[in-house]
Amino acid sequence: MNRRMVFYVAGQMVLVEAVLMLLPLIVSAIYMETCAFAFIASILIALVLGEAMVLIFKPSNKVIYSKEGFIITALSWVLLSLVGCLPFVISREIPNFVDAFFETVSGFTTTGASILTSYDGMSHGIMFWRSFTHWVGGMGVLVLVMAVSPTSTDRSMHILRAEMPGPIVGKLVPRVRQTAKILYLIYVGLTVLEIGFLSLGGLSLYESCIYAFGSAGTGGFGIMSDSLASYSPYIQWVITIFLVLFATNFNVYFLLLMRKFKAAFKSEELWTYFGIIIVAITVVSISIYPLYDGLGETIRTAAFQVMSILSTTGFATADFNLWSPVAKAVLLVLMLIGGCAGSTAGGLKISRVVTLFKSVKRELYRMIHPHSVGAVKLDGKTLDDGTIKGIGTYFSLYVFIMIAAFLAISFEPLSFEAKASSVIACFNNIGPGFAEVGPMGSYADYSAFSKIVLSITMLLGRLEIYPLLFILMPSLWKRKSNA
Amino acid sequence: MNRRMVFYVAGQMVLVEAVLMLLPLIVSAIYMETCAFAFIASILIALVLGEAMVLIFKPSNKVIYSKEGFIITALSWVLLSLVGCLPFVISREIPNFVDAFFETVSGFTTTGASILTSYDGMSHGIMFWRSFTHWVGGMGVLVLVMAVSPTSTDRSMHILRAEMPGPIVGKLVPRVRQTAKILYLIYVGLTVLEIGFLSLGGLSLYESCIYAFGSAGTGGFGIMSDSLASYSPYIQWVITIFLVLFATNFNVYFLLLMRKFKAAFKSEELWTYFGIIIVAITVVSISIYPLYDGLGETIRTAAFQVMSILSTTGFATADFNLWSPVAKAVLLVLMLIGGCAGSTAGGLKISRVVTLFKSVKRELYRMIHPHSVGAVKLDGKTLDDGTIKGIGTYFSLYVFIMIAAFLAISFEPLSFEAKASSVIACFNNIGPGFAEVGPMGSYADYSAFSKIVLSITMLLGRLEIYPLLFILMPSLWKRKSNA
Repeated sequence: MNRRMVFYVAGQMVLVEAVLMLLPLIVSAIYMETCAFAFIASILIALVLGEAMVLIFKPSNKVIYSKEGFIITALSWVLLSLVGCLPFVISREIPNFVDAFFETVSGFTTTGASILTSYDGMSHGIMFWRSFTHWVGGMGVLVLVMAVSPTSTDRSMHILRAEMPGPIVGKLVPRVRQTAKILYLIYVGLTVLEIGFLSLGGLSLYESCIYAFGSAGTGGFGIMSDSLASYSPYIQWVITIFLVLFATNFNVYFLLLMRKFKAAFKSEELWTYFGIIIVAITVVSISIYPLYDGLGETIRTAAFQVMSILSTTGFATADFNLWSPVAKAVLLVLMLIGGCAGSTAGGLKISRVVTLFKSVKRELYRMIHPHSVGAVKLDGKTLDDGTIKGIGTYFSLYVFIMIAAFLAISFEPLSFEAKASSVIACFNNIGPGFAEVGPMGSYADYSAFSKIVLSITMLLGRLEIYPLLFILMPSLWKRKSNA
Repeated sequence: MNRRMVFYVAGQMVLVEAVLMLLPLIVSAIYMETCAFAFIASILIALVLGEAMVLIFKPSNKVIYSKEGFIITALSWVLLSLVGCLPFVISREIPNFVDAFFETVSGFTTTGASILTSYDGMSHGIMFWRSFTHWVGGMGVLVLVMAVSPTSTDRSMHILRAEMPGPIVGKLVPRVRQTAKILYLIYVGLTVLEIGFLSLGGLSLYESCIYAFGSAGTGGFGIMSDSLASYSPYIQWVITIFLVLFATNFNVYFLLLMRKFKAAFKSEELWTYFGIIIVAITVVSISIYPLYDGLGETIRTAAFQVMSILSTTGFATADFNLWSPVAKAVLLVLMLIGGCAGSTAGGLKISRVVTLFKSVKRELYRMIHPHSVGAVKLDGKTLDDGTIKGIGTYFSLYVFIMIAAFLAISFEPLSFEAKASSVIACFNNIGPGFAEVGPMGSYADYSAFSKIVLSITMLLGRLEIYPLLFILMPSLWKRKSNA
């Protein structure tokens, strides 16, 4: 275990965060808000802490393995959240530290679960930072560093693998740094495009940024107490379409840019994704039709909510907590599925769901035809046993962690529906659940203990379980260990 | 596919059921109840149907493979339930056919979920038959036939495998018929022992039979509207202890009878089972302590309920629906775990849970030490990859089926808690859930459609998914198929 390297890279991340906080500082300066001082103080703390870590732990040996990749990712995300909540606390807009930590973790993990019951008295600068954490967390801050740092080597693949969502992270191009750069360019390009379309719809630049950050990262923080219900149909459709785009595997865009159209549309995950969207919108539309005025409003509301939940964003144009049980049940299943691998969305990921179904089908076939040698294929390629077993293990852990988190918060005096959906909504990085934690509710009523449990659950979901599990294994921290 | 043989064996099962119905006929004759005529009519129908099937489908070729084993099991269970509900319908004590079918499936699958809201006006004969289905379904009716039939060959192992609960069914002795006979002898012995102990506590022979059948099959049907709350502490402890015994792997008793004490107590499943019992009783006792008078009553109530749920029986001495959220959350997790493999209990089974945890642990280890060759061991023996993959597949199906069943009944106007716990309680063959379907509630409020869905869910749970899935695959029914 290369401990020096772990803390060194984590220190670099804190320095990057100091730079990122310049943006909300500028916003608060424009609006001449006192929270500017909170940002200045937080930036100074981040600079001192980050610089100290970099100086103290400067490693002679920069070699890292997958083990270090996991630990660096986990440690960086915890540190980023601890430093990132300072502006909330120092500005006293979220004075309680646990609340501020929960809100920041919810931001970086692109969950969008909030302890705020009202946005009155919140400054523009603080709300901007809150939404900006979504954008930073969506693609991953370590990926960002790799994209801009000239020193990253192919060893950094271990970090890219640990931070990027999805079971199979391929290098788009041979060099990791190039891959990270391409991913971030697509990400920035789509975000700028969305800001443009939202501005055309009459939103201010500030508002456009807030909603573009929230959808790009598939996060879900907004600035209105009714989420997006009061915005125009145009704005709602723009966001719906960008949610479809951001929950798509970014490899598809890369292939399109390379003019490899055939390869881009060969993806089984992509077609399954479109299929799920169409079926879900149809079922939800039928079941909520009596609640809305005409087909247009029904389809718009259904499409928005289906994409908001499937992409694990959590925006709302309606209080879906009041919908029919069938519509709510469909949303619950979408919460578990999530978006495509290699997108900014959370959840189990569509490629994992497809692989699980295919391997179950093969096992059933094998039970009847014991001598057959059927293989599980994805996009025409045979998946090796290791990948299939890995996805099975991931699924078991995915279920176990939700059960454990539910047990941990079971003492809370909230409804069964609220507690069960809190765990699902936090672990899959969606945000709002049902009942007390529905789109018009908040997580404010949970105890500090449960807020910490749910924060850990969000981190486990965003980092896809393993990095955070490994950080808790003492054996991994040993100085000398056999590879 | 040997179709003749499938229908021939299913016909034999119906004939066996006609014989089994003689017992409730005797009971109704003793109590001089009119339901005796319903039993006579049902027995005649079963005789005609069974005899017709046996005559029409008499096969020239009696060879069966695992495929036929699954289909025979699934078909027999559906037929047994259809014929078994006739006494309820004909006696007009449960006049609605869907309700009667639900109640019968619930009986044979040892679930114990009931559509009855009151036992007023129910005859002794009908209530005896209702509880007797638990006893028949607990060990399996096909196993019973193999135990008594002189013609069963080693091919019958395929049926034993398909009907016995648990991932690994071993032959206790080289001959299948002997294995089936030993299992049934242990089962009968323990049941008679329980009837004796209950009679010593002052219960009538009729009452003793009802509760012995309910606990032996880990079913849960009773004859009092408050389940077992009004019985003496002695009766409650006797049942608690027999629930521990019936949810234990019957292999253990066989090894004890063979005086192989060391082998009997080597089982990791057994020790995990005891560990779960002790931890669960402790946590529940602490969390319900304020509700009861003193330590004695608290521990008795906690022990009874923990064993009732873990063994997937579903008896109650208290309305656990009113317990603290922590106690309810513990019960919910116990519902999913279930008893030991090779017992009459339902659920995922402890050996599967242990194997899942071990294979997750090994995968985590492999991620950090890619060149390691750690194996998953159970009871000192290395499990092969096929077994581990099989358990992973089973777990995926287990989760998928519960989600699908929840979706199917989601339109019902019951609470989220009731619907979610209905699916869990039916699929794991427990019976009562929470909220409207709690121990003092019933399944009466569900629509006919949902009752059928839940009946299928119970059968899927009892037969461990595969037989019923295969019966739905048209390709399996083809006359000629490659092995």
